[in-house]
Amino acid sequence: MKIALIMENSQAAKNDVVYETLKNVVEPLGHEVDNYGMYGADDPNSLTYIQNGILAAILLNSGAADFVVTGCGTGEGAMLALNSFPGVICGHVQDPTDAFLFGQINNGNAIALPFAKGFGWGAELNLSYIFEKLFTGERGQGYPEERAVPIKRNKKILDEVKTKTYRPLVDILKDLDQDLVKGAISGEKFEELFFENAKDEEIIACVKELLGK
Amino acid sequence: MKIALIMENSQAAKNDVVYETLKNVVEPLGHEVDNYGMYGADDPNSLTYIQNGILAAILLNSGAADFVVTGCGTGEGAMLALNSFPGVICGHVQDPTDAFLFGQINNGNAIALPFAKGFGWGAELNLSYIFEKLFTGERGQGYPEERAVPIKRNKKILDEVKTKTYRPLVDILKDLDQDLVKGAISGEKFEELFFENAKDEEIIACVKELLGK
Amino acid sequence: MKIALIMENSQAAKNDVVYETLKNVVEPLGHEVDNYGMYGADDPNSLTYIQNGILAAILLNSGAADFVVTGCGTGEGAMLALNSFPGVICGHVQDPTDAFLFGQINNGNAIALPFAKGFGWGAELNLSYIFEKLFTGERGQGYPEERAVPIKRNKKILDEVKTKTYRPLVDILKDLDQDLVKGAISGEKFEELFFENAKDEEIIACVKELLGK
Amino acid sequence: MKIALIMENSQAAKNDVVYETLKNVVEPLGHEVDNYGMYGADDPNSLTYIQNGILAAILLNSGAADFVVTGCGTGEGAMLALNSFPGVICGHVQDPTDAFLFGQINNGNAIALPFAKGFGWGAELNLSYIFEKLFTGERGQGYPEERAVPIKRNKKILDEVKTKTYRPLVDILKDLDQDLVKGAISGEKFEELFFENAKDEEIIACVKELLGK
Repeated sequence: MKIALIMENSQAAKNDVVYETLKNVVEPLGHEVDNYGMYGADDPNSLTYIQNGILAAILLNSGAADFVVTGCGTGEGAMLALNSFPGVICGHVQDPTDAFLFGQINNGNAIALPFAKGFGWGAELNLSYIFEKLFTGERGQGYPEERAVPIKRNKKILDEVKTKTYRPLVDILKDLDQDLVKGAISGEKFEELFFENAKDEEIIACVKELLGK
Repeated sequence: MKIALIMENSQAAKNDVVYETLKNVVEPLGHEVDNYGMYGADDPNSLTYIQNGILAAILLNSGAADFVVTGCGTGEGAMLALNSFPGVICGHVQDPTDAFLFGQINNGNAIALPFAKGFGWGAELNLSYIFEKLFTGERGQGYPEERAVPIKRNKKILDEVKTKTYRPLVDILKDLDQDLVKGAISGEKFEELFFENAKDEEIIACVKELLGK
Repeated sequence: MKIALIMENSQAAKNDVVYETLKNVVEPLGHEVDNYGMYGADDPNSLTYIQNGILAAILLNSGAADFVVTGCGTGEGAMLALNSFPGVICGHVQDPTDAFLFGQINNGNAIALPFAKGFGWGAELNLSYIFEKLFTGERGQGYPEERAVPIKRNKKILDEVKTKTYRPLVDILKDLDQDLVKGAISGEKFEELFFENAKDEEIIACVKELLGK
Repeated sequence: MKIALIMENSQAAKNDVVYETLKNVVEPLGHEVDNYGMYGADDPNSLTYIQNGILAAILLNSGAADFVVTGCGTGEGAMLALNSFPGVICGHVQDPTDAFLFGQINNGNAIALPFAKGFGWGAELNLSYIFEKLFTGERGQGYPEERAVPIKRNKKILDEVKTKTYRPLVDILKDLDQDLVKGAISGEKFEELFFENAKDEEIIACVKELLGK
């Protein structure tokens, strides 16, 4: 699975520790990590948590990423922004039990983590346990086993509901403030990573237009 | 402020303890609580967490409620469902610090709580502290004070983004599975509470149609 | 390592889930679990959290167990009782990070867990992650690595201090209320497990006397 | 009530924020705070968590303080050190529910807090809620009310047990490494605060001797 990491301006300085922790846990499990930045506190290509939502929606809906790991100070802003877009189901995860249950029950394609609140000394431990319990084994199996049927049914209904509640992503991208959208895809490695991996032609075309290509 | 409580089938048995705890905390603060059920494990008008999302969207967008307190086993399902609808900004809150920061920074109009995960003995204490820290004083002031300006700006941008990303609620309600929607407004006290408080004529008309009135 | 499980009356009904979870995690790691009860809510040989302290001190100081897993409603009572005795260093552990850090930094020989507070649905997940992070690999290595020297030094100083602050266990056992002490060693399997594993002759003799043997 | 704050070397830089937060919460409740340091990362009078235990035992047993708030990186080391001494019942407290339940059920005279683990941005909020729930109202009332009788009985039994398990404090102070003990009472304001408030003549005499007075 291709996992994209996206971090916003207030916690950009922690990009290294989060990226290293994520890679160390998920690469042995057979996943890949694409680091979409911000790449530190001084990264000139700044992202707000709202832009995390725009970028995550582009990556997930285009197939450039299978899963997005993001966050902000408390994780709430990033979670709200991601869930404002079609094709994104973003959990808010604070501990390993959250991670496991979100993976098994809600089976979304993104998580938002608190990178400041509760993120004290030793926070890399909690992070690594979260990634371990989320990305080990198959997600979406329900928990406990005997509740698997209604859990999977509800997930399917939520997916269907979400196809009705949002506008198409390309329409959204055209109607949003264009500076906001362009800023979301201005990261140093965005073009390289996105065009190598994206599959949806309509979104690829839209992104090209946004980039003036 | 009028606070609506909405609980789904898996945790319906806890409606009493949550309702009493919420009332005990917020009534002295000058708020009112409307209990939209489910009213116990045997309540025949069952709600799934997805229907919590539909009902919350109807209440918040119509002005029938100013704030929604909801949840499910982990809170994630209800949070995802609510955030799938326009006009809803639903936090995922597990402790009093989450509650305060969500209120001050994200300033949403709903929270989803874990009513099973971590909800052991003494859980009513954590609940009451959460309500206290969320509903005391004015929300949306930012935290800490010196970060108030960018925090409020981002909240405003998120609000604007959300006006572009969702379809209109009435269109959504007409396109969703009609049994699903009707089930969401079948609670024993829904009609009484909703028609007494709702203000948006278009949504009121839509709900009347759904109820066959 | 031989791990003894001790539970008190208020949470005795959870003995099965805690014992099974502990065994499932630690047996594959090469450890053994001795279940000292209570064996359920109806177990006639009742233990209070204070008696957990007496029993844990007997097991650890005699060599009948290398490590004790115990707890009570919040874990605080059991923790306080165990730490009231010589030869016992009991952590209070609520999450996997607590477990890992206690193992690496404090390197004690007991933990007290909250078996009621926060022990909601899915609590067996948190339990199993706690056991996994505590009992995997070698404890007492310090964390992070570069702090290993002062951490190990402090642990050694604490051990030395504790040799001065407590009275000898056998003297304590003789001076405490004898019904309290006898109750602590009245569990159905105590005699079998204790005499098979204890190594300290003085404590063995003291226990025999207490049992009227 | 007179509350003493004691912090060790690894988290000494947080003395200000902890002291201010504690004072802001407890002074309006009618309590006083004595800050025994360390007074910052550069304070030359360094305390290890073990010395926190020695100092807390001197303050509580002499009557110089009614309650001790302490901690270390995870809180475990300080908790273990304090509970190694007679006359001290020190809880390990991580959240407001811990604080309330420890106050009502265990009714100890000290708490050890994690000043590094989980102590991220906004940690002053959790701190202030902890102090609020611990120090508001009367402690030792049991919780819930209907369990007050056995809870108070067990607390009384623990107190009695502890009178048998430890050696007298003055004997301990004489037998411990004298540099360790002297270091524990070397804080800049120790003499002023201690001699103004201590009531136990034997401990006062012992402290004077240690100070070479």
